[in-house]
Amino acid sequence: MSPALRVIPLGGLGEIGRNMMLYEYGDEMIAVDAGIMFPDEEMLGVDLVIPDISYIMRDPSRLKAVFLTHGHEDHIGGLPFLLREVNVPVFCLRLTKGLVEVKLREHHLLEETHVTVVEVGDAVEIGAFTVEFFSVSHSIPDAAGLIIKTPLGPIVHTGDFKIDHTPLMQQHTDLGRLAEVGNEGALLLAADSTYVEIEGHTPSEMRVAETLDRAIGDAHGRVIITTFASLISRIQMVIDSAVKHDRRVFVTGRSMENNVRMASDLGYLQMPSGMLMNVREMNDHPDAKTVVICTGSQGEPTAALTRMAQGSHQHVTIHEDDTVILSSNPVPGNEKLVYRNIEALFAAGARVLYNRIADVHVRGHAAQEELKIVHRLVRPRHFVGIHGEYRHLVMHRELAISLGMTEDHAIVLTDGDVLEIDENGARVAERVPADYVYVDGLGIGDVDQILLRDRAHLANEGMVVVVAAVDRRTGKLVRAPEVMSHGFVGPDDEPELLNGVQQLVTDKLGGEGDRVDWTAIHETLKDDVAAFLHNRTHRRPLVLPVMMEV
Amino acid sequence: MSPALRVIPLGGLGEIGRNMMLYEYGDEMIAVDAGIMFPDEEMLGVDLVIPDISYIMRDPSRLKAVFLTHGHEDHIGGLPFLLREVNVPVFCLRLTKGLVEVKLREHHLLEETHVTVVEVGDAVEIGAFTVEFFSVSHSIPDAAGLIIKTPLGPIVHTGDFKIDHTPLMQQHTDLGRLAEVGNEGALLLAADSTYVEIEGHTPSEMRVAETLDRAIGDAHGRVIITTFASLISRIQMVIDSAVKHDRRVFVTGRSMENNVRMASDLGYLQMPSGMLMNVREMNDHPDAKTVVICTGSQGEPTAALTRMAQGSHQHVTIHEDDTVILSSNPVPGNEKLVYRNIEALFAAGARVLYNRIADVHVRGHAAQEELKIVHRLVRPRHFVGIHGEYRHLVMHRELAISLGMTEDHAIVLTDGDVLEIDENGARVAERVPADYVYVDGLGIGDVDQILLRDRAHLANEGMVVVVAAVDRRTGKLVRAPEVMSHGFVGPDDEPELLNGVQQLVTDKLGGEGDRVDWTAIHETLKDDVAAFLHNRTHRRPLVLPVMMEV
Repeated sequence: MSPALRVIPLGGLGEIGRNMMLYEYGDEMIAVDAGIMFPDEEMLGVDLVIPDISYIMRDPSRLKAVFLTHGHEDHIGGLPFLLREVNVPVFCLRLTKGLVEVKLREHHLLEETHVTVVEVGDAVEIGAFTVEFFSVSHSIPDAAGLIIKTPLGPIVHTGDFKIDHTPLMQQHTDLGRLAEVGNEGALLLAADSTYVEIEGHTPSEMRVAETLDRAIGDAHGRVIITTFASLISRIQMVIDSAVKHDRRVFVTGRSMENNVRMASDLGYLQMPSGMLMNVREMNDHPDAKTVVICTGSQGEPTAALTRMAQGSHQHVTIHEDDTVILSSNPVPGNEKLVYRNIEALFAAGARVLYNRIADVHVRGHAAQEELKIVHRLVRPRHFVGIHGEYRHLVMHRELAISLGMTEDHAIVLTDGDVLEIDENGARVAERVPADYVYVDGLGIGDVDQILLRDRAHLANEGMVVVVAAVDRRTGKLVRAPEVMSHGFVGPDDEPELLNGVQQLVTDKLGGEGDRVDWTAIHETLKDDVAAFLHNRTHRRPLVLPVMMEV
Repeated sequence: MSPALRVIPLGGLGEIGRNMMLYEYGDEMIAVDAGIMFPDEEMLGVDLVIPDISYIMRDPSRLKAVFLTHGHEDHIGGLPFLLREVNVPVFCLRLTKGLVEVKLREHHLLEETHVTVVEVGDAVEIGAFTVEFFSVSHSIPDAAGLIIKTPLGPIVHTGDFKIDHTPLMQQHTDLGRLAEVGNEGALLLAADSTYVEIEGHTPSEMRVAETLDRAIGDAHGRVIITTFASLISRIQMVIDSAVKHDRRVFVTGRSMENNVRMASDLGYLQMPSGMLMNVREMNDHPDAKTVVICTGSQGEPTAALTRMAQGSHQHVTIHEDDTVILSSNPVPGNEKLVYRNIEALFAAGARVLYNRIADVHVRGHAAQEELKIVHRLVRPRHFVGIHGEYRHLVMHRELAISLGMTEDHAIVLTDGDVLEIDENGARVAERVPADYVYVDGLGIGDVDQILLRDRAHLANEGMVVVVAAVDRRTGKLVRAPEVMSHGFVGPDDEPELLNGVQQLVTDKLGGEGDRVDWTAIHETLKDDVAAFLHNRTHRRPLVLPVMMEV
């Protein structure tokens, strides 16, 4: 009997299969995407979260290649962490390669990595798999889905997508190719579930273009626009409108400057020469002829728009004639930071347009009616939802069933589930490790739930350190204990409380009597100090007693 | 010349005038509401944020009374902190008194406080002010606005409100009374701005009633519903539907149990006897005859729904036949916690209805068209927006101007601004203190930005303590230094790093040579250790060197 196809989502936080998906047949395995997640607030100090690749590392030689659907961080950000463990070829479209190479250079992996640019329609043969990229509409150019031919039949892996009949830059989802695969008989559809909660259709980018053009046309002063730095089509839209209204464009913020330069060099951004001006020349240029494109759509603390909002940007001071447009929506978790900027921009007197009050952004993912179109075109034997939280996968499964799929063919996978598909059907056969792997500085995986709990304790209560030096022969204090606190109480209350602790410790250790029992006293001293402080403040700082025999 | 009327919003976080509003005439002052704000995530360890009352405390005898519009925390939660500084009479409607008394009891202030229940339509004379409560529709019973007669003319202070023509419990906004005041000539309208971003009308509670009734009627198993514990009308709605579908009601979660008991005792909840059953009897009662009303609409970590989602509730284990309804929306900042629960409920197999996919909640605040009705009825000489972030106040001012008010009569105030109104007009005359006052445990106001920065540092990087005992005569180490860390690195990396620090410190202090200069070495040691650790880990823990002369 021939082997089963195995489908394994890995690595992340309920954003199933967004970070990485493995397709395995016999001894061969390919990975689709290798993304990161950004940490929640409670992942204190964590820089990013990467997929758990321990299953791959059981036998790295089985992994033959990585295919990247598009260049967003949640699809490519984890690639360096994978490649430094197992050096396999990477295949992607051209812009994605440009974005990946920036990362590989940062990680000193550029030279040893083999990244191959493919075109949509090209087929890459890797062992038992033949992988073809097809064009999809999404919020970055060169976004693709994959048609993965396997001995059991073809898989359609959509990646992130939506259906936009009037996209910018002709970035259509290739419905014709999907229909062909469907007509030939598809084994599996793995489709984006991010916006399955939303009824109807995601509006076209054209609606945003109209709103932005009206806002730029109506403005008397400067127009300052932020969006995702990778949303090249939106940037093109702003440039087109600036050309039309005879304004010049200034770009500020590192990732925006890098992306505009890279996208221009690769031909993804088109503009008349002289359109882009240096931000240092801005103050010599009339406000009414100025458009600023900047970073900061997510309220990132050091981004250009945040600096403008706080009055600390080197070249832009917000004033009453400014129109500021946030052509973006806050990613869940960033709402507070984004609205803090909006508040500050209002306070500085600017006119501010943002997604709650104007059509300045559309989503990059398919809503229910778009998903139904793809399901009906592909008509797969099996379905699995990818991209989205668990509830989205459940709803997407229900959507598939509502279109006529039988219940045992519509499958919900969580990270680490191994789905086996063969002639007899599909089933979750086993589970492999798929934990959160936290990156903090140079450390990968050393930060765990216990360490995060320690950090949360420090964060909420602060700490108190008590250092007592005792004579090793007599067991008595040789001098008054040192007591310090950090993050615990304000300066007015601190001296009295710390003196109290000093007195308490002196009483416990300094009195006459027998030699003290160290291990016993260490714990009781900690509890005694904690109880004393809680009684006085109703706070529970971390108490760290240090006893030194000298 | 007669004195000006002074209007002073105090105390909170851009949620202007929600926490507390002062109206002042000559030597007399009244306060409207005394609320709290819940802390942002970055206010580490802070329990709540209260208004800054230092302006009142300059001459507390001027404050004559506090009027409470309704019983939500952001309007009454700060009352004990005010009353313990200045004991003044409190006036409010009946349910508000019930909620306030719970707080006063907790703060041991119940006996010394004089809380007077008034009815809508009653007028309370306090010096130059005559204050009348009028009914408004909002997400809690006994919500009121105030008509405050002053020597310069009447003020309409709406409090939180919406206009609902088909409310439950007949809780209408008294448009007729507003028209009367408008016809007589109003001096000032101070109106809720929370939802001025939203076009059109806020839907009626009736729509929620229909959705909930359909969900309860369609369910085969248990129905578990969470909502705000103060949203008594919603609880009544659930009880009515349970009666209709022959189900019994079980209540779980402390604040929900307390509020249901209190509201039943005061007559705000009506139900046939025997409807409410003890949660301990639930497992002997058929699922198809069960409705559970519980806390946890905001994902609070210890609330009943959170425990159910985590599988740790004493009486309720979620299973596949359960329908769970979140009849609420996440308050900004709580999205992650709420969706974490939703995810876990889906994972447990429940059917889950929440505001993004079903009409299970409506807002408690007026949208644009409702605000316009109030503006047109009251037709005030002056307008000031209350309740909402700064951007809402700006938009509300623009709404007032769009209805014909001249620009200098429509005013935006921030906390601490003193608006003076007299025969000649209105102007911001001065500013009084209106800082954030943080409550953490028993400490009020000692937690400040510096302490929060210290806590954030500990939170994100952890800490390393180095204790070195040196001989006071020779200046040399008397034994190897002690090094400890907390929240810094995982257990695999910790020993090697801390040994490295120990070696570094020993090298610095233990070598031969001259006596060391303490103050100098303290700083350089800290920097040396920090540099060593950053180089090894790319993390920057707080380094706390303790040097003891023995």
